[in-house]
Amino acid sequence: MNDKDKTLQVRPDYAVEVSQLIKGTLSPKLMKEKLLTYHESDIADALKYLKSDERFRLYSLLGLQLLSQVLAHTDDRNIYIDELPLKKQEEILHYLDSTLAIEYLKGLSKTERNTLIDLMDEERKTELSLINSFDEDEIGSRMTTNYIQIEEGISIEKAMSSLIAQAAENDNISTIYVVDSDGLFEGAIDLTDLIIARKGTNLDEITVTSYPYVYATELIDDCIERLKDYREDSIPVLNSDNKLCGALTGQELSQLIDDEMGDDYAKLAGLSAEEELNEPLKMSMKKRLPWLIILLALGLGVSSVVGAFESVVAQLTIIISFQSLILDMAGNVGTQSLAVTIRVLMDEKLSFKQKLLLVLKEIKIGFANGFLLSIISLLIIFAYLFLLKGQPINYAILYASCASISLIIAIVLSSFTGTVVPLLFKKIKIDPAVASGPLITTINDLVAIVTYYGLAWVLLIGVFNL
Amino acid sequence: MNDKDKTLQVRPDYAVEVSQLIKGTLSPKLMKEKLLTYHESDIADALKYLKSDERFRLYSLLGLQLLSQVLAHTDDRNIYIDELPLKKQEEILHYLDSTLAIEYLKGLSKTERNTLIDLMDEERKTELSLINSFDEDEIGSRMTTNYIQIEEGISIEKAMSSLIAQAAENDNISTIYVVDSDGLFEGAIDLTDLIIARKGTNLDEITVTSYPYVYATELIDDCIERLKDYREDSIPVLNSDNKLCGALTGQELSQLIDDEMGDDYAKLAGLSAEEELNEPLKMSMKKRLPWLIILLALGLGVSSVVGAFESVVAQLTIIISFQSLILDMAGNVGTQSLAVTIRVLMDEKLSFKQKLLLVLKEIKIGFANGFLLSIISLLIIFAYLFLLKGQPINYAILYASCASISLIIAIVLSSFTGTVVPLLFKKIKIDPAVASGPLITTINDLVAIVTYYGLAWVLLIGVFNL
Repeated sequence: MNDKDKTLQVRPDYAVEVSQLIKGTLSPKLMKEKLLTYHESDIADALKYLKSDERFRLYSLLGLQLLSQVLAHTDDRNIYIDELPLKKQEEILHYLDSTLAIEYLKGLSKTERNTLIDLMDEERKTELSLINSFDEDEIGSRMTTNYIQIEEGISIEKAMSSLIAQAAENDNISTIYVVDSDGLFEGAIDLTDLIIARKGTNLDEITVTSYPYVYATELIDDCIERLKDYREDSIPVLNSDNKLCGALTGQELSQLIDDEMGDDYAKLAGLSAEEELNEPLKMSMKKRLPWLIILLALGLGVSSVVGAFESVVAQLTIIISFQSLILDMAGNVGTQSLAVTIRVLMDEKLSFKQKLLLVLKEIKIGFANGFLLSIISLLIIFAYLFLLKGQPINYAILYASCASISLIIAIVLSSFTGTVVPLLFKKIKIDPAVASGPLITTINDLVAIVTYYGLAWVLLIGVFNL
Repeated sequence: MNDKDKTLQVRPDYAVEVSQLIKGTLSPKLMKEKLLTYHESDIADALKYLKSDERFRLYSLLGLQLLSQVLAHTDDRNIYIDELPLKKQEEILHYLDSTLAIEYLKGLSKTERNTLIDLMDEERKTELSLINSFDEDEIGSRMTTNYIQIEEGISIEKAMSSLIAQAAENDNISTIYVVDSDGLFEGAIDLTDLIIARKGTNLDEITVTSYPYVYATELIDDCIERLKDYREDSIPVLNSDNKLCGALTGQELSQLIDDEMGDDYAKLAGLSAEEELNEPLKMSMKKRLPWLIILLALGLGVSSVVGAFESVVAQLTIIISFQSLILDMAGNVGTQSLAVTIRVLMDEKLSFKQKLLLVLKEIKIGFANGFLLSIISLLIIFAYLFLLKGQPINYAILYASCASISLIIAIVLSSFTGTVVPLLFKKIKIDPAVASGPLITTINDLVAIVTYYGLAWVLLIGVFNL
């Protein structure tokens, strides 16, 4: 029991084990046997610990088919494929997922690419060129031809043997697609239903005609939410003639969803796209600098607004201290509203009434939170000015009131802009994630500055003549 | 061709179609036939358009098994289950995913819950109570008993017929788990391999013994990255005796990954957890207020630091204008570094050297971007002060230099903190996402304030006696 508890806590590092195995002195037969007890993902992780000659030993132990499965598990696959002789590269590309094969081919020079493609068999060539014919943001570029298709109207037995015949090449078998004699998509059969169907059952009875599908030319961004809702393991991809031409696997779907969320995350942080660890400096700069320059311009705008209040500042230098507080809090609250709105927009299609309710809800939360926060800050700012800074009591009260009233106004306004801006962006068909983090913060900065110094000017200077 | 192009662009709103069908006057037989041509997800979306009596019509057309599949597609499922009579609730809970069934039961009062559980058959009771026995952050709480298990050493034919016998109840069949006679987990068989295996093949030959597994008591956060890497459709869950006790489906896995990313997204926006559209005000406040209060406290700290520079401000009111610029830019750059670091930490295990490289890379990017940005702002601020504000040329040069030097220093320091803080958090085993957005911004505010006013004080007042 104690031993088992230990295995629960300290899981061995399989990648290190694999690399030690390969660096070791076992006979090839034994080494291969041991190697095959590890998962491809762990073997892939071991690659980075191996020197070039050790990697080649590993490759020959695995064989090319298994190697291609291993390579599918690492992001550095292209580096490893590059090391291989041409003929082996071609075989790896034969076994690799079409999307990954194309990704590798795209990294090559035109001559290298053509040499490699010339080595491929016709079927694979057609397959890759079909998938490659779609834009990167179209579904077709992410589909695979690894799917099972049977013709309508055949018997259960025939369907089963057709499945067995195709399964050796295509292992994406959990859903079987049914087409008519022209290749038009008819529906799908869940493999479970086919397996438990009694002899003599009509194929029609187990074919789901309401099965979701997608067109190869649809934009990934446009349909990913819908496909996610269907929660199916595999989605058929049709060409514009409604003929079946590919499939999206469950893996590819989760990858797409993951990418989309990663993208939203990056945008909230003011990055134009996700970055990877080994990305060159130039590429990282290219992803970050555009946003930063826009933000700099906006920031200079904010500065000139502050500059316009110079006379207020000159008279009441103490109020400067709380500028960052009010700006930051407005920014924080606005970002919260923004993030909630973007996530809601991502998951659901909202009616006008729902949008209105969302805006109202955010304002209400903004008001409730803002009220509490402004009471707290009223007390603390008063104490700070009166006790620490030795300001006269009436001044301290006025300054603190001015700051805390500005705080609640700025917070409510930020909740409003944080919700309405992404809704508007969505309406005019700009990705609401663009409205993310830094942009909304800058907008809210402006709002907060005008509120704060405006109020100080009117109230403190205008009314109370401080 | 033109017609087809249209269907590509305007996809009918199936949910509205379903609701119109149900509100219509077709005979029940025809209505049911038509209804079954829609996907469960679309039927689920239609529920919100239906009145209570229309929903009941829909329920009786669907039957309880199909209804439970429909309900699995909506987040409002508990509201709809509440409407049903007790006996039907029990049946729905029988067909529903265990995780969802437990979620419903948890929302009930103790008496209601016990009444419902009493109605269930023994098998379901044991199943639910097993899953319910795990904490919410343990893998066991998310597993299902919907999996296929066969005993080692049987023939291919027997394995196939055992699969068929179990498949009627358990439709998660793409991977079949192999156990020994004591129920100890041995490995897994890919259904494709079983289907294409020739008669007489030994079951051992197609059993993958390196198949990944997870313990029911492992924490979701600890193992989700590893499970993601394996990219399998289904992961077996073992109890502490290494016996098979459940499975994580591919759907559940992507849900967990999705949740984790959603959580990181929320944290970057300063929310303690993700929110949903229909969440009550109180719950939303509870998720947002704690962070806001911490940020308020930090903000007040920043304010008191600004307050310490009051004498600088009083002498040089014009420099106030650029405070927000420098703070915001430092915050923006820091958030970029933070987001990159968090995403890298999420996907990979870094060696010390890699961490060092990451920090260096971020500082380099910070310096490169900061250099460009400070040159731009030097020119613009100078132009603004000299041309618009009518400052003497030497003053304008000094102010602009002071601001732009502070800018580049603040940006480089922010890149550093934005990378090092999450790395440190990870090291001391705090979720690095906690270091997210607002917190790092506040830290960088402090750094920027001290840099800016400190430099202004030393340079402008100390050296040049402005």
